[in-house]
Amino acid sequence: MHITFLFYEGMTALDAIGPYEVLSRLPDTSVHSVSLKPGAIHTSSGLVLHAKNGLSDISQTDILVVPGSGYATSLNQFPEVLEWIQTINETTSWTTSVCTGSLILGAAKLLLGVRATTHWAVMDRLSQWGAIPTEKRVVESGKIITAAGVSAGIDMALMLAEKVAGKDVAETLQLGIEYDPKPPFDAGSIKKARPIIVTALREKLMKKFEKGPLLTNNKPSSQSS
Amino acid sequence: MHITFLFYEGMTALDAIGPYEVLSRLPDTSVHSVSLKPGAIHTSSGLVLHAKNGLSDISQTDILVVPGSGYATSLNQFPEVLEWIQTINETTSWTTSVCTGSLILGAAKLLLGVRATTHWAVMDRLSQWGAIPTEKRVVESGKIITAAGVSAGIDMALMLAEKVAGKDVAETLQLGIEYDPKPPFDAGSIKKARPIIVTALREKLMKKFEKGPLLTNNKPSSQSS
Repeated sequence: MHITFLFYEGMTALDAIGPYEVLSRLPDTSVHSVSLKPGAIHTSSGLVLHAKNGLSDISQTDILVVPGSGYATSLNQFPEVLEWIQTINETTSWTTSVCTGSLILGAAKLLLGVRATTHWAVMDRLSQWGAIPTEKRVVESGKIITAAGVSAGIDMALMLAEKVAGKDVAETLQLGIEYDPKPPFDAGSIKKARPIIVTALREKLMKKFEKGPLLTNNKPSSQSS
Repeated sequence: MHITFLFYEGMTALDAIGPYEVLSRLPDTSVHSVSLKPGAIHTSSGLVLHAKNGLSDISQTDILVVPGSGYATSLNQFPEVLEWIQTINETTSWTTSVCTGSLILGAAKLLLGVRATTHWAVMDRLSQWGAIPTEKRVVESGKIITAAGVSAGIDMALMLAEKVAGKDVAETLQLGIEYDPKPPFDAGSIKKARPIIVTALREKLMKKFEKGPLLTNNKPSSQSS
């Protein structure tokens, strides 16, 4: 079983590393990192990851995981990445995303008519790519599985682990990473957080996201081409 | 405010990256990665991180985060790392660990008489370093804060965020990473997982940990020296 993580400049590290930590522990699995070209990847937090493969090195995978980015990514300026996603998707059993990674799947035209989720702050942008916004922590729609913001990738990975290796293995992985979450606050979703927190963060994120060409579909004509 | 993450070969990536994603979003904060020497760090999952600093580059920090490792780490063979932890600890407001990182703090002689936690599978080894094993997700004992296995680092980081920047900021960070966990199974602790799962995983981990000099205190005489 091959599991491949797409890395790119400005990505959110935890979007990828949450699922990476879970899925890499599956038995009989090879995990790969791939980027436009191999080498250093500067994530949004300043953490530097290393992508081992360039796009041309990976032509098949059973599971693809596309992390998101809160920063203005420039993946729209790299159509070869979106083309690679389209091509590799033809080989996958599951094509997955975390956070705004679903907007990248959308830009790769994989979400037409597909129920999907993303980070709460950009939920309305899914429909720009023809997706059906669905407010759940993890949304399964055929072989496309999308997770909500950042930390939701861990929940998605455990769900995937069960599909791949069964419930006993998935529960063992959960116990292995002692995933018995006890957040000190109950502010992890817009339904639970105090309205003043939600409003302030939404405004801050909107200002940031306005700069992100990937997160809006500025060329509607290209969507249907 | 300076926040420093210790990286080392064989570390568990998520132990560090969970807190990194949270704490790097704090306002007015500089986040640093440090290792025996700067460069590539091969984590237990195969993921490669990049440590930007060597030990001599970091002589002061407000928060230190020490991740754990499920593999036999060889930090005991590098006394300069343990000495660096001892020295930097004199400058911190909080010295913290995730998972078996607390055993590293123990090896650095920072846990004598200190309540602390670690990964459930090695809880009994804390007392070998003079610590008082305490079964909580996050244990605060003076300026030493220790988190349970792997994923507990996210909960610890949110607690730290409140201490550093107040509850509004901490809740905003939680909402930002949409940390509203919904594990598909309820198997994240030894109290919740099925006994057959706990027993099998414990046996597997024990075999692995036996090879790890850091995880046992093989030289009791050096503990008190």
